[in-house]
Amino acid sequence: SEVKKIAVIAGDGIGPEVVAEAERVLKRTEEVFGYTFETNHALFGGIAIDETGTPLPKETLEVCQSADAVLLGAVGGPKWDNNSKELRPETGLLGIRKALGLFSNLRPAVVFDCLKDASTLKPEVLEGTDLMVVRELTGGIYFGEKFRREGEHGEEAVDTCVYNVAEVERIVRQAFEIAQKRRKKLASVDKANVLETSRLWREVVNRVAPEYPDVEVEHVLVDNCAMQLLRRPSSFDVIVTENMFGDILSDEAAMLTGSIGMLASASMGEGSFGLYEPVHGSAPDIAGQGLANPIATILSVALMFRLTFGYSDAADAIERAVAQVLDAGHRTSDIAVDKSTAISTSEMGDLIVAAI
Amino acid sequence: SEVKKIAVIAGDGIGPEVVAEAERVLKRTEEVFGYTFETNHALFGGIAIDETGTPLPKETLEVCQSADAVLLGAVGGPKWDNNSKELRPETGLLGIRKALGLFSNLRPAVVFDCLKDASTLKPEVLEGTDLMVVRELTGGIYFGEKFRREGEHGEEAVDTCVYNVAEVERIVRQAFEIAQKRRKKLASVDKANVLETSRLWREVVNRVAPEYPDVEVEHVLVDNCAMQLLRRPSSFDVIVTENMFGDILSDEAAMLTGSIGMLASASMGEGSFGLYEPVHGSAPDIAGQGLANPIATILSVALMFRLTFGYSDAADAIERAVAQVLDAGHRTSDIAVDKSTAISTSEMGDLIVAAI
Ligand SMILES: CC(C)[C@H](C(=O)O)[C@@H](O)C(=O)O
Ligand SMILES: CC(C)[C@H](C(=O)O)[C@@H](O)C(=O)O
Repeated sequence: SEVKKIAVIAGDGIGPEVVAEAERVLKRTEEVFGYTFETNHALFGGIAIDETGTPLPKETLEVCQSADAVLLGAVGGPKWDNNSKELRPETGLLGIRKALGLFSNLRPAVVFDCLKDASTLKPEVLEGTDLMVVRELTGGIYFGEKFRREGEHGEEAVDTCVYNVAEVERIVRQAFEIAQKRRKKLASVDKANVLETSRLWREVVNRVAPEYPDVEVEHVLVDNCAMQLLRRPSSFDVIVTENMFGDILSDEAAMLTGSIGMLASASMGEGSFGLYEPVHGSAPDIAGQGLANPIATILSVALMFRLTFGYSDAADAIERAVAQVLDAGHRTSDIAVDKSTAISTSEMGDLIVAAI
Repeated sequence: SEVKKIAVIAGDGIGPEVVAEAERVLKRTEEVFGYTFETNHALFGGIAIDETGTPLPKETLEVCQSADAVLLGAVGGPKWDNNSKELRPETGLLGIRKALGLFSNLRPAVVFDCLKDASTLKPEVLEGTDLMVVRELTGGIYFGEKFRREGEHGEEAVDTCVYNVAEVERIVRQAFEIAQKRRKKLASVDKANVLETSRLWREVVNRVAPEYPDVEVEHVLVDNCAMQLLRRPSSFDVIVTENMFGDILSDEAAMLTGSIGMLASASMGEGSFGLYEPVHGSAPDIAGQGLANPIATILSVALMFRLTFGYSDAADAIERAVAQVLDAGHRTSDIAVDKSTAISTSEMGDLIVAAI
């Protein structure tokens, strides 16, 4: 089969460790399914700041642009937290999203059986929770003009939130299509009782909704959504929302599953191009000790296979392998009830690779 | 003693019912403690739209402006949801906040013993949760310029988020002072890794923090805060944040206590002037049936006594009376485990009045 090019960005903290295991999974699927991958490694985030003086070097962008998909570990850490804006890992993250046109962030929030008890929510409330947050990723207050100025009452700071119809329509249509393949329920989240961008958002949703008659749509105000996620998480299927609200709600949704350390995410551009990464962060406190859980990154590979390459056989195999290893009781220390029985990052990788 | 003037705004839905019980509590404290209140009723919200054509009539504003404090029931309902912006109850709410200079919204989120089980969080996670969200209420993206325009890519909508140093400093200092009277922990919530207004916010917090050396400050990013509220709610004491983040986080915090139907809130202006209201909404579905729970509104009176009038004896008495009635097992239907034993709005009022 055709060679697929994957840009691999290990990043900071536990990034390199978890990405290493995901790459072994890639190799294994080449053997088992006959796919061929060309991986190209690139520097990004804190390590790129240290080695090249910028969080998003031009070569990294080029490696990504010439790839079919990007696999990202994690970026950031206290070492760079007090840097000036241009020298911060987050600036690289925002830059890569914009440069690669990754307008849509897909954040599935599901409950892993073996982690049900890790949630702070009652099991009966959590039961059946399986939702997907579709977050707009290249617009809104993240990318609008921002500046300081001397105002009537002294120094002031300004952020601008802008959305045009096309930007909203693109993400909303994607969310409808995703809902069509799931339980056919879409919650569009906005603050239309206060914000003009939200009123535009709601107009677009209402205009395109009739083209997806099989999907049931509800408009939910963002403050109410933050509450309903807590009260009735299992009643949500797909949630679509703008960048800032999506940042907050997708983290809330991920946390309430109790499975945040196991969740994968995709940031999609036009066509099938996507950047895949675990939802968890770079966890600098446990970096380099073989303690990290590689499952979220391995599941990010499965998501890549499904969404970018259409390799659902291999995606299924990876997901089944993960389930099988967990069912057999193997745990890294983050999810082990008895820490003394925990296995290392690479042992978990070994087991999953063997199970594929 | 001096006559205190209270503007009473019953509002929509269950507003009139719960406010009626709160007024009986006011009367009772006059008898018991010798205080004297002059109450003036005013139209606001949906009912004001219906009767006067505007959600915030000029006379209502005058009644409020000449009062020492405002007691508000609840506003809004589906009847007015599709009105144009100027004819919506929310527009009245934003208008009254701005006109009265209510820059600070205090939202205590506590767990009522009898409602512990109503939370979707596990009791052991909830244990000891007692936090206060201090939300900036007259700035940020709520009040910045908002408009539509023809952009490069067609129609677009714009919202502007603006904060000046004085606005931030005012609310931040208030939060520090509140923290000093509580457990001396302040979490300042922002999105300083993305927003310029958040960077200004953080600078102000860092500049004034040394003046409150007894208060331990942490900066928490808003997405992380949405998660930590779920993971370790009891570790928060005071949370201070800007308007939009405060809207979302205060609702999340209230909901996780399981006691949202019982929580009071205060919106404070300069000096001791304040508007007091229950956190819950107008619940149009149960309006007029004597089913509403008046406790949150009655506790709003206690908050008014404490924060505006300094009548802590009467505030204590009200809070004790509420606790006593609940301890004796009396419940309105919203909080009754066995609905058949539920008492009515006015029966709950009777019991609390009698217990003062
Ligand atoms: C690091 C930060 C800029 C980023 C965001 O806010 O988008 C992160 O929170 C995320 O959700 O990917
Ligand atoms: C009704 C709405 C405008 C209001 C707000 O967003 O401030 C409400 O949600 C609140 O929190 O008081």
